[in-house]
Parts: sequence; C-alpha cells; structure tokens
Amino acid sequence: MSTALTVNSYFNDKVKSIALDNKEGTSTVGVMAVGEYEFGTSQREYMTVVSGALMVKLPSSDSWKVFVKGDTFIVEANQSFQVNVKETTAYLCRYE
Amino acid sequence: MSTALTVNSYFNDKVKSIALDNKEGTSTVGVMAVGEYEFGTSQREYMTVVSGALMVKLPSSDSWKVFVKGDTFIVEANQSFQVNVKETTAYLCRYE
Repeated sequence: MSTALTVNSYFNDKVKSIALDNKEGTSTVGVMAVGEYEFGTSQREYMTVVSGALMVKLPSSDSWKVFVKGDTFIVEANQSFQVNVKETTAYLCRYE
Repeated sequence: MSTALTVNSYFNDKVKSIALDNKEGTSTVGVMAVGEYEFGTSQREYMTVVSGALMVKLPSSDSWKVFVKGDTFIVEANQSFQVNVKETTAYLCRYE
C-alpha cells in the first residue's frame, strides 16, 4: 500500500495542502498565506478553520462573513467562493 | 514580506507538514500516514488531532492513550514521545 502523502500548491505557492484519506473520508489539510483567493468546487466541501480566520463570500451571498478557529462552512459542488485571508490560516477541507 | 509556505517532510515522506505563523503563534499543520513514529520536541508542543486519531505514549507514561479529532495533548520541551497511527491523520502542532 502506498503511504506517499501528496502536497499540492496553488496561487503561486500562497496556498498549499496535503491530502489524506481516512474513516472520515477524503480531505486536505492546508495553509493559506495572507491574500485574496477564489476557489472552485467539484464536490461538496466542508471547510473548517483549524488556526486563524477566513473572511468568506459564499456563492449564495453578497456579503463577507468571518469564520474563526473551529467554524465550518459548506460549499456545494460546482460553485465558486471568495476568501480574503488577513492572517495566515490553516484549514481542513473535507470532500463529499 | 515573504508569503512562501514551507513544507517539511519526515520519516521517508510518511509525515509532512506546512508551517504557519499567525496571532495564535507558530504552528505546523500536517498529516501522518499509517505507521509508528518517535518525535522529539525542542519547545513545548500542543498537538491537536484535526482528522483521524493518534495512539500516543507520552514521555511520562508507560501506556498508550488514544486521541481523536478535537483532542489536544501537550509535550514539554526536550522530550520524546511515540505515536502509533492506525489511520491517516491530520494534526495541528502549536509551539510555545
């Protein structure tokens, strides 16, 4: 069985993540440097803030909402959402 | 200001982590593949399970204890501790 861990990098290395599969399903854990990003989903995503905070504009919303450590937001498949990161932030993204 | 994110790899790539600095301090978020590891600390470490579970033998203990998602254990500086990973597990390690 392969135990190699895959690291992915996005936005000129300002977002990096490590993939994992376990009983909870398929996830990535990663870090976002300070900046503004737009992400697209191909599956439903459960995004949880692990350390730091994310300002997020969800697909259905015109306003920004702040999610802090421990908070989770859900984005449906085939949507895009914007993230404004004011301090370097760690997250867990679980896919369904 | 550099926004480069540093990825570190240990134990033949079976443990990988991404470093971050924010209001909470200095941390790494990482993933451990299935296996057994012994880690040494140079600072006090607050280890929190983000996804999965860790069986841990703490420096002061002769027995193994299981920490699941959301649980935190603390290891003082200049100690070593053993971890037995039964499913791929994501963690946050905060340094003090």
